[in-house]
Amino acid sequence: MSSPRKVSDSTVRRLSSYLRILRELSSGGTETVSSDRLAELGGLTSAQVRKDLSQFGNFGVRGRGYDVSALAEELTRILGLDREWRTVVVGAGRLGSALTAYPDFSVQGFRILALFDSDPSKHGRRFGEATVLPLEELEEFVRERKVEVAILTTPAAAAQAAADRLVAAGIHGILNFAPTTLDVPDTVHVRVVNLAIELEGLSYAIREDGSRGTGSSGGGPDEE
Amino acid sequence: MSSPRKVSDSTVRRLSSYLRILRELSSGGTETVSSDRLAELGGLTSAQVRKDLSQFGNFGVRGRGYDVSALAEELTRILGLDREWRTVVVGAGRLGSALTAYPDFSVQGFRILALFDSDPSKHGRRFGEATVLPLEELEEFVRERKVEVAILTTPAAAAQAAADRLVAAGIHGILNFAPTTLDVPDTVHVRVVNLAIELEGLSYAIREDGSRGTGSSGGGPDEE
Repeated sequence: MSSPRKVSDSTVRRLSSYLRILRELSSGGTETVSSDRLAELGGLTSAQVRKDLSQFGNFGVRGRGYDVSALAEELTRILGLDREWRTVVVGAGRLGSALTAYPDFSVQGFRILALFDSDPSKHGRRFGEATVLPLEELEEFVRERKVEVAILTTPAAAAQAAADRLVAAGIHGILNFAPTTLDVPDTVHVRVVNLAIELEGLSYAIREDGSRGTGSSGGGPDEE
Repeated sequence: MSSPRKVSDSTVRRLSSYLRILRELSSGGTETVSSDRLAELGGLTSAQVRKDLSQFGNFGVRGRGYDVSALAEELTRILGLDREWRTVVVGAGRLGSALTAYPDFSVQGFRILALFDSDPSKHGRRFGEATVLPLEELEEFVRERKVEVAILTTPAAAAQAAADRLVAAGIHGILNFAPTTLDVPDTVHVRVVNLAIELEGLSYAIREDGSRGTGSSGGGPDEE
């Protein structure tokens, strides 16, 4: 069953987006939704929506669209959200502790069991059910509690060493917020959240507007 | 000068990534870098690197590669990072205040002038040079201080109303952390950071491994 499921990263992202839309529709009492409407809500073409969803089975009801609850349930299963993922946060600074409180994580089944930090002054602090533990205890905790996912929020300089320890302890996936590239084996999945890259995309786009608006000078919005 | 610059979103992301690598190389004392080495550090092919960079001019020195400082400087300019972007954070919860302290923002020229929140108990709190102000003061502040970028970290239900107010006050770009789609005019640029989507990509990938590893049952890593 694995081969027909080999889908692209961008498809997986769109599936996440469909699921979010379907949940909103469902909580608003909507029972069926057309591919046109799903496409409109997701900012996509309806052909894209139909193509994406057809890879996973036949969810459409001819003339009525998709069954909102059934499709949401199937996407939840496909995305691996019908189960709990044992998760730790490495780096208990502001970002790490903010993420621990981020409601979407627990809603999606990412259960944060502990935070780890090298700073002794942070040890013992509680965030929800999770406590900040010494970094030296990381491997043992990951092994014993069969932790699957780590959210990495250390400074860039400490990230690779932390990743190496997580990999050695058997982690399956890392969500990397540290602004550096991690070198891990192919068997460990890494997702990167680089906030600076998003901001740079924004500044590039705004500056482009400025260039177009002012014609040839290219000086950007500062000249207004 | 704007038409040859119309590059794709994914190119802009790679430019950000090159810039990050070049800065690391520069701080390590490296003066020139080959496209092969840049490609290796960025996890790309060298053909991709050469194609991306050739869109913006001729930075290569034949037989020696790229001049690290000159290329970094040029990418900084292209990405709009050679200037300051007046920025506010809307939503002064944990995520908003964590982002205010995120060092990369100020390094990249995003200067956070203020945070806004509807909760009076948060008003007056200081984060660096920024203070939490009442949400009612948002439009006036954005207009008077010519704020260009807003980082939106409100709950989903409050995000569209906040975006409408930012747009009315003349904002140029929004970095949206609220887990909802924003409806804004085409003239306003929106970048979405959806942490749940990244986590879902991770859980999808790990689950896929589980399916392959255990053969036909598809039960995933829970069965280990």
